[in-house]
Amino acid sequence: MAVYTDVTADDLTQFLAGYKIGALLSYKGIAEGVENSNFLVHTSSGNFILTLYEKRVAERDLPFFLALMEHLAARGITCPQPVKNTAGGMLGKLAGRPAAIVTFLDGLWIRRPSAGHCAAVGEALARLHLAGKDFSMKRGNALGMDSWRGLYDQAKARGDSVRAGLCDEIAKELDALEKSWPRDLPDGVIHADLFPDNVFFLDDKLSGLIDFYFACTDTLAYDVTVCLNAWCFEPDHSYNVTKGRALLKAYGKVRALTAGEIAALPMLARGAAMRFLLTRLVDWLAVPDGALVKPKDPLEYYRKLRFHQSVESARDYGISA
Amino acid sequence: MAVYTDVTADDLTQFLAGYKIGALLSYKGIAEGVENSNFLVHTSSGNFILTLYEKRVAERDLPFFLALMEHLAARGITCPQPVKNTAGGMLGKLAGRPAAIVTFLDGLWIRRPSAGHCAAVGEALARLHLAGKDFSMKRGNALGMDSWRGLYDQAKARGDSVRAGLCDEIAKELDALEKSWPRDLPDGVIHADLFPDNVFFLDDKLSGLIDFYFACTDTLAYDVTVCLNAWCFEPDHSYNVTKGRALLKAYGKVRALTAGEIAALPMLARGAAMRFLLTRLVDWLAVPDGALVKPKDPLEYYRKLRFHQSVESARDYGISA
Repeated sequence: MAVYTDVTADDLTQFLAGYKIGALLSYKGIAEGVENSNFLVHTSSGNFILTLYEKRVAERDLPFFLALMEHLAARGITCPQPVKNTAGGMLGKLAGRPAAIVTFLDGLWIRRPSAGHCAAVGEALARLHLAGKDFSMKRGNALGMDSWRGLYDQAKARGDSVRAGLCDEIAKELDALEKSWPRDLPDGVIHADLFPDNVFFLDDKLSGLIDFYFACTDTLAYDVTVCLNAWCFEPDHSYNVTKGRALLKAYGKVRALTAGEIAALPMLARGAAMRFLLTRLVDWLAVPDGALVKPKDPLEYYRKLRFHQSVESARDYGISA
Repeated sequence: MAVYTDVTADDLTQFLAGYKIGALLSYKGIAEGVENSNFLVHTSSGNFILTLYEKRVAERDLPFFLALMEHLAARGITCPQPVKNTAGGMLGKLAGRPAAIVTFLDGLWIRRPSAGHCAAVGEALARLHLAGKDFSMKRGNALGMDSWRGLYDQAKARGDSVRAGLCDEIAKELDALEKSWPRDLPDGVIHADLFPDNVFFLDDKLSGLIDFYFACTDTLAYDVTVCLNAWCFEPDHSYNVTKGRALLKAYGKVRALTAGEIAALPMLARGAAMRFLLTRLVDWLAVPDGALVKPKDPLEYYRKLRFHQSVESARDYGISA
């Protein structure tokens, strides 16, 4: 949560001269987005978000993200819509970085989601998967199954400092995942990071989805389990089957899960837990002593993984085949 | 530049129920203000700034700051205007902290001020000083002359690590300031921190002043020298007499400086440089190794101090008695 790059008023004024969004009235760096610098920009024609893409986001992926948001918005998904410059492009350069302007979305994110919020997310995720069906661009999941062994290798020398025996458990789980990972399920565009802070609500109605910078082409049902992990556990890390059922049922009403997808949910959920356990572990170990920024707790996802390992079938998530 | 306190949508909705500013539509933590947590709040009636006061701001001072902004706004100074809650108060409690809502000001701050910008600031500062004349509350300058020796004591053990011999020079200068500090000049409300990032412009016209959290009752001409230091030096730390003259002349057109004030400018400017040299030095030494936040360079103000020590009279600033 930080603004990394300083943008001067002169530079921004010059950048905005290439857009038809009116005169610049103010801009503020906002504490949003871990990978990029974001600014809330107020012009004579309204509010916008300016994003400067920092090093952690690969420049070659930006056309995918921007075209995807445009594609989804055109199909009725409420998400930030890239604003085209007068040359027809969605990507420019500002302060030495690739930069884009997207529309501003009102909405609030929910810290303690109810079953109703979980249902709304399930429905929105299914709509997103359907809307992405005819999106022609592809992007591999840089944090998908094939990347986890490499993440583990980065963490294993010091991983046990976070919890005794953690590395052994991860290694065993990676073996199991690599052996049994379901590879022939329906795939398509997934959000891959649809956590509560990326979903806006107004008056308990879902009002928009944001942050498509992990979006990629991968197993659709894997995206569902990312959401189960992010939305359906309580603060004490226990799984709330009422919330899970609400999310899965609402998803299924829009896009029915196949029998194969339902059967694979436990393994996919283990993978989704592993992905966030590993990236959080790497981030945790990378923070220097005395730093003011506190990374997210990797052990939250270790506990979720343990739950999924204990699951016997998708019935335990609140859904039957 | 950071958001320190997390505010949940539920808590903010409940807090705003005590105000008549419409329904909450969105809020974003903004990278503004070093001492407080600030949020840009969008409601159905417009944009506002929500400030949560963190520990470094003394709670007993908040009524002074808020009443001052209201007083100045009522007298035509464009500054954030505290919004009163339905109980008539300007100060509430949110996330365990004192909190206030103020109006949002459009405008951009200028990284490389021209002589024209300096003139605009001089004029605005004089208007602020005049508008503050009948403000009845008082607040001593917590970072005024009498505090500098204590700041030096905090820094002296390690100050020479920043520059060899620095502590000796500061000690000698403090002796000189304490001996010759002008104590019978006109006083009143001063902003005390009117740096470029606290002054907004639109189309090269000054559009507003912000951040009154160092405001206090002190020598008016001292405030002028804070601005000379903040606005009239070049990036290479050389004094730009054209900018200084523009600032002083524009100030004088609104509020004429007395002969005593003009004669005291060099000593006041040395004090103003000392104040920022010392607070920056203390902050610099307080940052742990490896921290991501880079504090402001104290030596910038050491160099400004050296310039002021070489000044023979106010003529060197571009003004004659």
